[in-house]
Amino acid sequence: MRMRKKKHGEERLLAVSSLFIRDGLELKGPVFLEIGCGKGAFARGLAEKEPEARIVAMEKISDVILLAAEALPPEIKNVSFLNDDARYLDKLFRENSVDRIYLNFSDPWPKAGHFKRRLTYRGFLALYRKILKPDGKIFLKTDNRPLFDFSIRELRESGWEVDGVTYDLHRSPMNDGNIETEYEKLFSARGEPIHRLEAKPLPLPVPDQIS
Amino acid sequence: MRMRKKKHGEERLLAVSSLFIRDGLELKGPVFLEIGCGKGAFARGLAEKEPEARIVAMEKISDVILLAAEALPPEIKNVSFLNDDARYLDKLFRENSVDRIYLNFSDPWPKAGHFKRRLTYRGFLALYRKILKPDGKIFLKTDNRPLFDFSIRELRESGWEVDGVTYDLHRSPMNDGNIETEYEKLFSARGEPIHRLEAKPLPLPVPDQIS
Repeated sequence: MRMRKKKHGEERLLAVSSLFIRDGLELKGPVFLEIGCGKGAFARGLAEKEPEARIVAMEKISDVILLAAEALPPEIKNVSFLNDDARYLDKLFRENSVDRIYLNFSDPWPKAGHFKRRLTYRGFLALYRKILKPDGKIFLKTDNRPLFDFSIRELRESGWEVDGVTYDLHRSPMNDGNIETEYEKLFSARGEPIHRLEAKPLPLPVPDQIS
Repeated sequence: MRMRKKKHGEERLLAVSSLFIRDGLELKGPVFLEIGCGKGAFARGLAEKEPEARIVAMEKISDVILLAAEALPPEIKNVSFLNDDARYLDKLFRENSVDRIYLNFSDPWPKAGHFKRRLTYRGFLALYRKILKPDGKIFLKTDNRPLFDFSIRELRESGWEVDGVTYDLHRSPMNDGNIETEYEKLFSARGEPIHRLEAKPLPLPVPDQIS
């Protein structure tokens, strides 16, 4: 938000500030979406590393995203928070509008009956394909091996090219420039490996005509 | 902005509300930009008429845009305000990202020496061309005949197709669905004619090679 003169007093401004487009980069630059931003350490790190990008930090738990919003230093202008559920992604973003999607330490939903809730379930992948640009990509990190294996399977079966796979990110060359989440810091301090991959949607084959 | 539970008290939320993407249509739908929204009557009318569109209401005078923001009924979710100057449009919007630009009763800058400040000066038209989608359009209304004539000249000389010209909008069939600005209401009550046009950018000829 940009208000040149502040003679109205902060209160009147504050009351309508959510209606304003913030000063900075919100309308321009590539769009990077983190699904499940938690308390926001990754989004903050990404915003600093990629000052030209617009970071959308999404989190469905409002108590948690409030902490992330409060923790954002005022000098970081290129992060916006979105308190919503990933299942509505195609209602929230235009088609072909997102450059990158980050999935960091998503809930593994370990029970077999809950697999449709995992953020790499094919139903979610179809949403990601829709909102990603044609050259867009997913970046996934997790300490959970079953979720990682499930993700690779779902991605391949949904026509994504999986690349940059490592089962121990912190001891791999790909760790250069890695931005750690709150969870990752705690976890890697215990020496446990982090799994990581990236994936891009391949064009889907044209379905056979019904004839 | 969407916060499901409000147990934190309004104050904490309010303090960070400008960091949130508001609930509604901000990330999706065509983008309609009004340059010089004044107190916002047109933007409000447009938002109601085009609920699928995202209206960006831009105004460089902060005292005025504050009034527009305060006057926005909370049930209108698809208007965002932008307190900035049109000369920075290409810093604020991506290329090919805007569907429509509305210029309503722009300052005519009547002195000959000020023609570069008129919002239809070719320098501004070049910015509009950049941020408009290839099938995007400008919609202009004014009561000022010299500004209108100047606009037509600048548009034609800058490779825009001018269409839907009327010198008396309120007595023309094009008035159907017309959304009046605050200024227009006052002005047309006096029976004075409103001029109106639309224009779309034609592809520019490829410049001759320097050889």
